[in-house]
Amino acid sequence: MISPLLTDLYQLTMAYGYWKLNLHEREAVFHQIFRKQPFKSHYSIACGLAIAAEFLENWHFAEDDLNYLATLKAPDNGDLFTHDFLEYLKNLRLSVDIDAIPEGTVVFPHEPLLRIKGPLIQGQLLESTLLNIINFQTLIATKAARVCQAAAGDPVLEFGLRRAQGPDGALSASRAAYIGGCAATSNVLAGKKYGIPVSGTHAHSWVTAFPDEMQAFSAYAKVMPHNCILLVDTYDTLAGVRHAIEAGKKLRENGGELRGIRLDSGDMAMLSQKARQMLDAAGFTQTKIIASNSLDEYIIKKIKENDGVITVWGVGTHLTTAYDHPALDGVYKLSALKDEKDQWIYKLKLSEQIVKISNPGIHQVRRFMREDQKIVDVIYDLKLGISDTPDCFPLDGAHAAIKLTDFDSSTDLLKPVFRRGKLIAQLPSIHDIRATAKNQIEQFLQTSEPIIGLENNLYHLKQKMIADVSKKNNE
Amino acid sequence: MISPLLTDLYQLTMAYGYWKLNLHEREAVFHQIFRKQPFKSHYSIACGLAIAAEFLENWHFAEDDLNYLATLKAPDNGDLFTHDFLEYLKNLRLSVDIDAIPEGTVVFPHEPLLRIKGPLIQGQLLESTLLNIINFQTLIATKAARVCQAAAGDPVLEFGLRRAQGPDGALSASRAAYIGGCAATSNVLAGKKYGIPVSGTHAHSWVTAFPDEMQAFSAYAKVMPHNCILLVDTYDTLAGVRHAIEAGKKLRENGGELRGIRLDSGDMAMLSQKARQMLDAAGFTQTKIIASNSLDEYIIKKIKENDGVITVWGVGTHLTTAYDHPALDGVYKLSALKDEKDQWIYKLKLSEQIVKISNPGIHQVRRFMREDQKIVDVIYDLKLGISDTPDCFPLDGAHAAIKLTDFDSSTDLLKPVFRRGKLIAQLPSIHDIRATAKNQIEQFLQTSEPIIGLENNLYHLKQKMIADVSKKNNE
Repeated sequence: MISPLLTDLYQLTMAYGYWKLNLHEREAVFHQIFRKQPFKSHYSIACGLAIAAEFLENWHFAEDDLNYLATLKAPDNGDLFTHDFLEYLKNLRLSVDIDAIPEGTVVFPHEPLLRIKGPLIQGQLLESTLLNIINFQTLIATKAARVCQAAAGDPVLEFGLRRAQGPDGALSASRAAYIGGCAATSNVLAGKKYGIPVSGTHAHSWVTAFPDEMQAFSAYAKVMPHNCILLVDTYDTLAGVRHAIEAGKKLRENGGELRGIRLDSGDMAMLSQKARQMLDAAGFTQTKIIASNSLDEYIIKKIKENDGVITVWGVGTHLTTAYDHPALDGVYKLSALKDEKDQWIYKLKLSEQIVKISNPGIHQVRRFMREDQKIVDVIYDLKLGISDTPDCFPLDGAHAAIKLTDFDSSTDLLKPVFRRGKLIAQLPSIHDIRATAKNQIEQFLQTSEPIIGLENNLYHLKQKMIADVSKKNNE
Repeated sequence: MISPLLTDLYQLTMAYGYWKLNLHEREAVFHQIFRKQPFKSHYSIACGLAIAAEFLENWHFAEDDLNYLATLKAPDNGDLFTHDFLEYLKNLRLSVDIDAIPEGTVVFPHEPLLRIKGPLIQGQLLESTLLNIINFQTLIATKAARVCQAAAGDPVLEFGLRRAQGPDGALSASRAAYIGGCAATSNVLAGKKYGIPVSGTHAHSWVTAFPDEMQAFSAYAKVMPHNCILLVDTYDTLAGVRHAIEAGKKLRENGGELRGIRLDSGDMAMLSQKARQMLDAAGFTQTKIIASNSLDEYIIKKIKENDGVITVWGVGTHLTTAYDHPALDGVYKLSALKDEKDQWIYKLKLSEQIVKISNPGIHQVRRFMREDQKIVDVIYDLKLGISDTPDCFPLDGAHAAIKLTDFDSSTDLLKPVFRRGKLIAQLPSIHDIRATAKNQIEQFLQTSEPIIGLENNLYHLKQKMIADVSKKNNE
């Protein structure tokens, strides 16, 4: 269970401020987006909603959380929070509405993955935790999708536990990696918790535990006659393959079968070719060749280009930590707030960098698709609505506005998940999410570069607000 | 509580193999080392032992763990584990001896951070979890030490929760970051769990929640008169500084004080200089300038070189995910195993890469120090002992052997932590660990490049074994 204290202190001090000023119950809208595709990827896979939903369903401050908060001091040594405020927190239960893009959906920068609508104080208190969960899950599902794409249909096993970022860094990464397309994980606890297939071979220590490699392989074949995959590089890879074949022959005599060998070092393309020849020549044509050793999508692609004949890919550290881009840059911005007359006031944060200027309003994303495989995602405002002849004003600033009248179909991506603090959506199983991701990626890979932009009304509102806000705050 | 199922499946299948072959109770020695300094750092900070100790103290398979393992199938659809083996696991309790280098110690590649001595099956079952815990904690403590070194005495606040690798990726990173030298964390749960100071300011959403920046600052100053730090870049940084000064003046009239401003975008060196001038001219000479925005040790160094006048550094993503090197390459190798006659047999794994050839034996590390600030760490074998006139054979292969007779002092780094499965060490508080790390780093920074190597007896044994093992396994 994730505690509501898994948040940044400033969320609690701001909450306290809103409460003292009696602004805390004002209705607010926050959106969670990311600004940049990780790994220079052309797409990301939305992931983490089920974990977020579990957190939200159980969200409340426990007695010992409040006792801890009561110990915190301001710099003048006064209490940071008053007793009354902590009493308020004690009784606080979520009443927000949350809409989300379902897990497994292909998503792009600036699209709201989540829309949180409800009391200002609640939206604020949820920010850090939702960012933490969704950022990491989306990052790893996306990395896994890329690795699986490079493997081009070969099974990919996730092996990252030992170098993952902490126990849960491993556990939740295994979940996201499976959603992104991995066939199994080595992480037994992830198997138990998420119902993911588990898989594994043996380590070098098995081999070194015996007087020599041949004895180690024979012993392993004896105890695992139906699950025998031998790691062949403890001393010398090709000698190891010879020993594996010898063990495999004895295994066959006893009714078992050598299922595979694993290569864990050296030139994988060359070694896999030689190993394949040796295995085939000895009649082990069905024996798999599993590769591991700091693999990622780039190395897998290279091994394939060099005619490596790997059957299964074990990918660890580089997948589980998203090594080349270890954080998604998700943000969570206030975009609308009701005033004292119960009227929505739209909100905007400026920046010298255009990409960091937030989008005001209460958003939905409509995905337009055309027969020629073009995808255009349009962010529109629920109050302003969508024009009868909508245009898309691309957010990258690099494309001209696009007419959306000749598109064949469109669908709104954000779906209701929580209403008045209660989970109302039936969340799909992890296997269904994985299937969704697979379909979405296949469909996406046939499309031309997608375009993400604002709908006419929202676009013009934003331009006007940028001018107004800039003027007002520079006075 | 970390489950013993947080392991790779192959540890369990190997354990099952050892058990079936009745090798499982053979006494074995495993060492956990890392091979390469992360971040091209000259040192790392050992970290994670207290978390590992908590895991080890509670290590046992629960009923539902065993029920889950009973559901796992081999490819022939038979049970992966027999009922008898699961019964064995049910009753299994740790009886290993564990020695470790204390948290906060400056450490180098190839040094055993942990030595695990006891039944083969236990050493094997602990591998993945210990690697997971120690790798990540050591990585982040080291990163934090580097960031704090760049900050040169200015306080560093850890702000990484929102983009950390999962809930625990954030939580355990906050612990390690504090040990590495951070002054506080924004993560409230880390504060509660580890007794770390917590700290924070406010977000852009506070500013956008009000009609304009001036009203937002006045409101914040009103509700946080003694804890008022204002984020000034929501619309325009220097206009924000003017507004903060205005709010600060009113605050003083009401008996409060503007404690700080926070810069979160733009040219930090230039903006901090201008802000400092403006603050000083208005009489706010004690008001701190806090910087945040994708900082790391390199950017902090650069801002300082460009005469930035930052008082406090808020460092998030790049610290908490160790962005430029997000995994420590720790490994865990079998190095000795008793045979059927209860004699120790030393073990070695070969590799084409010399750095990946493991060191046989039962190790201790002795740190030799000299008045001229030279450090030499010597790995020696407990059975072979250390020569009366020891030499150090450097593991990098780049240095000649070094005589250790003229060193002033020496100390063994591995200390007893568990005996017969019971925690016997009194582990220091997180504050004491942090102080140890601080002292060790200060001392280390005065030394010349350290040298790590093998003691004479172990070195010669290893050379002989490489030849023997290589010959034997290529037959």
